[in-house]
Amino acid sequence: MKNHPFDIASQITPLDDGRFRGTTSPAYANMAGPFGGATAATLMRVVIEHPERTANPVAFTVNFCAALRDGDFDISVKLQRSAKYTQHWSLELEQNDIICATATVICGARANVFSHQSGEPPQAPPPEECMEMETVGALNWLNRYKFRPVDGTIQFSRDPHVELKSPRNIHWVNDHPERPLDYLSLAAIADTFILRLLYVRGTMAPMGTVSMTTYFHTTGEELAKQQSAPLLGVATAERFHGNFHDQAMTLWGKDKLLLASGTQLVWYKE
Amino acid sequence: MKNHPFDIASQITPLDDGRFRGTTSPAYANMAGPFGGATAATLMRVVIEHPERTANPVAFTVNFCAALRDGDFDISVKLQRSAKYTQHWSLELEQNDIICATATVICGARANVFSHQSGEPPQAPPPEECMEMETVGALNWLNRYKFRPVDGTIQFSRDPHVELKSPRNIHWVNDHPERPLDYLSLAAIADTFILRLLYVRGTMAPMGTVSMTTYFHTTGEELAKQQSAPLLGVATAERFHGNFHDQAMTLWGKDKLLLASGTQLVWYKE
Repeated sequence: MKNHPFDIASQITPLDDGRFRGTTSPAYANMAGPFGGATAATLMRVVIEHPERTANPVAFTVNFCAALRDGDFDISVKLQRSAKYTQHWSLELEQNDIICATATVICGARANVFSHQSGEPPQAPPPEECMEMETVGALNWLNRYKFRPVDGTIQFSRDPHVELKSPRNIHWVNDHPERPLDYLSLAAIADTFILRLLYVRGTMAPMGTVSMTTYFHTTGEELAKQQSAPLLGVATAERFHGNFHDQAMTLWGKDKLLLASGTQLVWYKE
Repeated sequence: MKNHPFDIASQITPLDDGRFRGTTSPAYANMAGPFGGATAATLMRVVIEHPERTANPVAFTVNFCAALRDGDFDISVKLQRSAKYTQHWSLELEQNDIICATATVICGARANVFSHQSGEPPQAPPPEECMEMETVGALNWLNRYKFRPVDGTIQFSRDPHVELKSPRNIHWVNDHPERPLDYLSLAAIADTFILRLLYVRGTMAPMGTVSMTTYFHTTGEELAKQQSAPLLGVATAERFHGNFHDQAMTLWGKDKLLLASGTQLVWYKE
């Protein structure tokens, strides 16, 4: 998928000093700088393409330390520990001598052991029965995904909703143009859930994710079956207080399997 | 609280090379090595007691890379980024030249802005009406907490439950002996939820947390009000597959406020 906008946005080039250079892509532009999911995928790619990697990722945390500006950035990687069952990787992303993000990726050996899914996806009509959200003219990165809301969309307002809305929403989501799902795109899709404060309050305000953790429950075989079919995504939040709020998400694939789950901590100004 | 077992277990001593030495404590002994929550608190203490810290923690991720043995260990800390609203810290914990844990702590400036709690604690009788769980003779760290189950306890078995049980449980929990709640103890209590696989299957098997992320929703003022009163804790899980399972938890304090929420990724062998 060398020419897919996602692969262009997340591509890396090895530097002489052992680091890797990435470049922000206009196709995934956010309000200012790039969509965080594209940055997350670029960090993840350093591990995915690393010759010493022995297994697929199971856990991924990205901390966004400073606003990334459009242009080049450099990523350093350290294999902290490589053992029989897990590998622990640490990464730092630097731009103009500022650490803009840190990340940890844990890779884990999988075997055919006890398997049980206690969670269930929410009820939803199939994607083809859900109307696609209109994103033309919106932020570029929103156009890199097809969102099919199941239970309504954000109700934007100039004034905060008199009655605050639910932070929960359900939608179908996949890459646009379509692209077979892999750990890179799953890491990015985990960040496509609009910040919950917008759902609750309806007003635009300075806000941004400061930390994001994603767990991958899916094996490579399941991913191969998923192909580019839409994932059913659910996101919610529990508390908005003192400039920060949480956000939790689940992403469900074919056969109602949970492919990934995750949390974010979001900063907001007022 | 210098003489509380928790403060002894999480104490740190500065070394000449800029690192900090910690020592495992028998009072928080687990099956092998220390309770992960004590290790997490020791890492957190390096940031909490750091002279350059400007705000209280809002997000905390610990990755357990290798089994920690009883004895000394050394922690290095790096302030990755210090800005107006957030500070990002990275830590590494080393023992016998092996990285046994990495961690990131984000501290965040709080102000009296928009506040809204969309989540609600589960229904539960007050702690004084819930019978304390018998932990005498069990692992030492279990005796460092008072657990008051609200909806039953683990049903251990020699053979896996024929019908798998729910991964969800609710209990009241606080330090034993009592200790006023702070970010350190909250970081440890976040790790007191018994691994969900035990609830579901009932059988003992090799297993351990590989990554844990905790978000602190509480301000210092709320913590001061909480004192040593029990927290209402809820934990659940969604999927057990290919040697790993997730686990999510919430911890509720006085006035039904959400003080912390978090997730874990757990490895299991068979």
